[in-house]
Amino acid sequence: MYSFRNDYSEGVHPKILQALTETNLVQTCGYGLDSYCEEAANLIRQQCAAPQADVHFLVGGTQTNLIVINAFLESYECVIAAHTGHVNVHETGAIEATGHKVCTAYSPDGKVTPAMVESIVNANTTEHMVLPRLVYISDTTEIGTVYTKAELQALRQCCDQHGLYLYLDGARLASALTSAESDLTLADLAALTDAFTIGGTKNGLLFGEAVILSNELPKAHFRWHMKQRGAMLAKGRLLGVQFKELMSEGLFFEIGHHANDMALKLRDGIAALGYDFPTASPSNQQFPVLPNGIIEQLIERGYVFEDDHVVDETHTCVRFVASWATPEAAIDQFLKDLAACK
Amino acid sequence: MYSFRNDYSEGVHPKILQALTETNLVQTCGYGLDSYCEEAANLIRQQCAAPQADVHFLVGGTQTNLIVINAFLESYECVIAAHTGHVNVHETGAIEATGHKVCTAYSPDGKVTPAMVESIVNANTTEHMVLPRLVYISDTTEIGTVYTKAELQALRQCCDQHGLYLYLDGARLASALTSAESDLTLADLAALTDAFTIGGTKNGLLFGEAVILSNELPKAHFRWHMKQRGAMLAKGRLLGVQFKELMSEGLFFEIGHHANDMALKLRDGIAALGYDFPTASPSNQQFPVLPNGIIEQLIERGYVFEDDHVVDETHTCVRFVASWATPEAAIDQFLKDLAACK
Amino acid sequence: MYSFRNDYSEGVHPKILQALTETNLVQTCGYGLDSYCEEAANLIRQQCAAPQADVHFLVGGTQTNLIVINAFLESYECVIAAHTGHVNVHETGAIEATGHKVCTAYSPDGKVTPAMVESIVNANTTEHMVLPRLVYISDTTEIGTVYTKAELQALRQCCDQHGLYLYLDGARLASALTSAESDLTLADLAALTDAFTIGGTKNGLLFGEAVILSNELPKAHFRWHMKQRGAMLAKGRLLGVQFKELMSEGLFFEIGHHANDMALKLRDGIAALGYDFPTASPSNQQFPVLPNGIIEQLIERGYVFEDDHVVDETHTCVRFVASWATPEAAIDQFLKDLAACK
Amino acid sequence: MYSFRNDYSEGVHPKILQALTETNLVQTCGYGLDSYCEEAANLIRQQCAAPQADVHFLVGGTQTNLIVINAFLESYECVIAAHTGHVNVHETGAIEATGHKVCTAYSPDGKVTPAMVESIVNANTTEHMVLPRLVYISDTTEIGTVYTKAELQALRQCCDQHGLYLYLDGARLASALTSAESDLTLADLAALTDAFTIGGTKNGLLFGEAVILSNELPKAHFRWHMKQRGAMLAKGRLLGVQFKELMSEGLFFEIGHHANDMALKLRDGIAALGYDFPTASPSNQQFPVLPNGIIEQLIERGYVFEDDHVVDETHTCVRFVASWATPEAAIDQFLKDLAACK
Repeated sequence: MYSFRNDYSEGVHPKILQALTETNLVQTCGYGLDSYCEEAANLIRQQCAAPQADVHFLVGGTQTNLIVINAFLESYECVIAAHTGHVNVHETGAIEATGHKVCTAYSPDGKVTPAMVESIVNANTTEHMVLPRLVYISDTTEIGTVYTKAELQALRQCCDQHGLYLYLDGARLASALTSAESDLTLADLAALTDAFTIGGTKNGLLFGEAVILSNELPKAHFRWHMKQRGAMLAKGRLLGVQFKELMSEGLFFEIGHHANDMALKLRDGIAALGYDFPTASPSNQQFPVLPNGIIEQLIERGYVFEDDHVVDETHTCVRFVASWATPEAAIDQFLKDLAACK
Repeated sequence: MYSFRNDYSEGVHPKILQALTETNLVQTCGYGLDSYCEEAANLIRQQCAAPQADVHFLVGGTQTNLIVINAFLESYECVIAAHTGHVNVHETGAIEATGHKVCTAYSPDGKVTPAMVESIVNANTTEHMVLPRLVYISDTTEIGTVYTKAELQALRQCCDQHGLYLYLDGARLASALTSAESDLTLADLAALTDAFTIGGTKNGLLFGEAVILSNELPKAHFRWHMKQRGAMLAKGRLLGVQFKELMSEGLFFEIGHHANDMALKLRDGIAALGYDFPTASPSNQQFPVLPNGIIEQLIERGYVFEDDHVVDETHTCVRFVASWATPEAAIDQFLKDLAACK
Repeated sequence: MYSFRNDYSEGVHPKILQALTETNLVQTCGYGLDSYCEEAANLIRQQCAAPQADVHFLVGGTQTNLIVINAFLESYECVIAAHTGHVNVHETGAIEATGHKVCTAYSPDGKVTPAMVESIVNANTTEHMVLPRLVYISDTTEIGTVYTKAELQALRQCCDQHGLYLYLDGARLASALTSAESDLTLADLAALTDAFTIGGTKNGLLFGEAVILSNELPKAHFRWHMKQRGAMLAKGRLLGVQFKELMSEGLFFEIGHHANDMALKLRDGIAALGYDFPTASPSNQQFPVLPNGIIEQLIERGYVFEDDHVVDETHTCVRFVASWATPEAAIDQFLKDLAACK
Repeated sequence: MYSFRNDYSEGVHPKILQALTETNLVQTCGYGLDSYCEEAANLIRQQCAAPQADVHFLVGGTQTNLIVINAFLESYECVIAAHTGHVNVHETGAIEATGHKVCTAYSPDGKVTPAMVESIVNANTTEHMVLPRLVYISDTTEIGTVYTKAELQALRQCCDQHGLYLYLDGARLASALTSAESDLTLADLAALTDAFTIGGTKNGLLFGEAVILSNELPKAHFRWHMKQRGAMLAKGRLLGVQFKELMSEGLFFEIGHHANDMALKLRDGIAALGYDFPTASPSNQQFPVLPNGIIEQLIERGYVFEDDHVVDETHTCVRFVASWATPEAAIDQFLKDLAACK
């Protein structure tokens, strides 16, 4: 038995727990103005080769998305996203609750292309329609795919041509950047986006998203935005301590690598048993199609995972997620158990 | 040297750190649907003598206030608060950002009275004005005062008479309930309010506010409100583990008592040295008036505390806060040092 | 030369101008509480066979849509609409600006079906997604089609089954109800919807939309919603006088009939010249496909009309609209001129 | 009998009705892009000596205030207003519904001073508080007082010093500018404010507010803001025709003069009978204190006017308003009748 439900089923990576424990009784000021946050921000700026970037630490992903997006947009401006985009589907209308429409294009692989962007820009041309102004992408995407540098450069060029901001949601950025299909670096992201996030929650932290702002527009008053939306953590040092540890000695990438390795081992093992994967994912989420009878047997054996969508009356596409905490032995055992199902 | 800046200068109470450490690798589902949250909610329901109440765990105070208030109000309805109310002054317009006006009455001691409520109700009577619908109070208040049971009962009666909801922000509730001036219990709060919070951030947790909903209105879809505002923690178990520990074996009250004891010792010591306290606070925040020269000497000696307001050209009212982490020795040393200033 | 651009190119129907002139110097109270508004509301209630309905008069369509929809929805609830729906495409994100997402289904003919509604309901089932709560339809639709009674009954049944409100935008309701393809009456609309509007702007008034509320929910404080969104006309009597005249002696239907007759004559004449209409419209908007060269010649001759969409490199689908003011002679002349183009 | 309730009790000034009638059947394009609007805007720019200003026409006052203010402000920014300000009291939280707090200072005469502005600026200095960014004033104020040029210059200087926008609500601007106490011109307003309005509703139009934008910030997309809030009138020509007439041949000022003359005659007559006016108003609203018994007798004689506030158990401060439509004979008769009351 093991839970492959998501990459936030456990608490926190032991190294980070140790850092929190060691610093526990140090007195600091609140709200992210402490020295741990400053050190963590400096580490991120260095690794992003972006000395001018502003770095802020927030608690969660939906919170971060709604604040970043609203900080860039005027009331009448809208977001462009893939129809699968987290901001479109899984945030209970958080973006709309700040007043902004999300205009979507159908994307089979979860990625946004310049053609999609242009179709939306070209369809919204007068004051009777919203004004497209920011492109939202996620890396990895919601279905596990990753962007290449060429793809991101093409999006950047398209955004520049149309006066759009480019924002990358990196909730699973460690898995993306350490994927074999990605040739992107943190420095590329800082150079090619107006803002992006480094996700902590799904990469070993208790919680936390780092926002890296390259664009000048939202810098001056980003903390006002954070506070107004309830995203300024009183004990901000908790984010500083965690991100400082995460961005030190390669832990961020180490965790991403491990999660990917475990997911790909799982994928290859499942595929070897003859099951299909409708979307090819090179990252820590895998979406095989399993017969419902097999799914029931796996559940009986104590495995936990989520349905993604119904394929037909007898088959379901399910999601398996690996993380920093997934032991190789759990994969081995699962594959044995799957082979034993019939 | 010591920081009396606030009650969230350190990390987390050791008992709670231990609980987090012990449960760290247990796999749970996300978003507060785990068994720790359920156990913590049950403990709270029991101690509130409110088996029908709904209990939710959120991350921070401003976040909680904006979600609870918005969950009760229609678009055209407003909040009634003291002019000192946290939602009026220190949340960067978070309530207004959800669309609701905050109507305030001047309150010298930070508490809301039925007369204040009625003055606002009586001034807003037609569709050209907002409709008052929820009374926001905090206990302790922003300036350290606390409500008595009689005061809260009177407010409840006033609210019932005018069709208003009553919401109590308990960011510093442990200090309030353990204050010598308070005769309120958790059960009283559950019985007399439509919603109230038990603050964790300022009472030993890493972070966290528990919302107790007695009123039926917001129960069915409160989680939709939480998610939409980015307040649903992915690793919700962190809140469950912490609140379970906090509400076990009297830790909640123990922490409140200690903070109050330290603050009152500080108050008495400062008063004995001849300094005034414009507002009498029986809780963990103390507001003495000090000569600016003395303040400078204290700062030089490494003491940290905040200015509250300027009194005159040579005097400032400052704020000292004690917490679960404040050692008695720090108070003793401070009082010696203060006595040595001239 | 003639403008077929829309049904609001002129001022006001002469009968209504006369009514405004005759009542011009009568003193009334403001904000729609005058006797003209009361008389107009009574006429509407009578013709809707809905003595319990509330009737309000607003200025414009987008204003009305955003107020009605927001009055029904909680913060986390969303609207269901066709992808062509006015609230989705042509209101500059007005619904989102009140905080609500618009979830759309692709609709070739601009109408919403129960299957579309259910596809959206079934896709939004947890607190991580918005909660569908109101179905927005328009009659005539944005592309000229109309609902039958059976279609509206099916939608009502679907809404009841899923706990949804049904709101019908009647900006062009006169044209819809007088269309040969419609078997609906005002009484049917009052019985089958939770709210609907009777459009005045596109049916001979200077401006104005009447909102008929059958559902109890938004009744008590609808005027608060109106005022908050800037939709309460100071000289509300202007709406009362106009709607009283419009709903007297069948003027509402007479105007609809005339607009339809002129549009159908135009349609038949254009079709007789061999041009196609991709969508069959039985109402006052007609969408023929014309060669771009013909379009240029028509423009040179002084005709005004709008492009709807590009068909191919040499053809465009254009929109012609007839109204209360369209003289039959203008149609005759246009058809002669079109025949003369080559 | 006569109604002094407000300055919008009748329909429209006869000259403007004539202009509407004469242009009624002319076909124009919609949404304010017609030639009447262009001519009206040019007239306003000329009279404001502001060739670079943008001029937009909206329907009502609350609508205009919420759109202009929101067009200037970022999410975390707030409005500064007198406690009596229309946006604070009588717009059902319309500003807050766009997300912005209104911070108020107590103002005995309804005017905002630099000292009031600075008190609010100085109290809001960190990201935990809203950022003051726009000063809202009205001329005439809600209680009939008017600004002098020196006062407005001082406010402008104060705003420049603190990086604030200055917005003047001119709902009753004709009365203000023609008041003996005012030395301001339209050109002064265009030069000293970032935006101001010329009110039509209370100055003889059916409805309508002209917005004059001197500041560049909101110019580019103001029409998006208008459309999103439902303020773009389909038959925008109605606003163009009316404002063209209003701003021609001095009608705007003629109406203001007449309203003031009638109001001052009323004031002097009432004062001569021994009644007090707690606030000295030089404009078309007058606020005498009358014994309740006298008020009852006036009502019995068919006079209509509004209570402003209760003075004591036997006296009420009431409001009388004169307009373009108030005949001198009505004043004469009223004063006779008042003298006859006892």
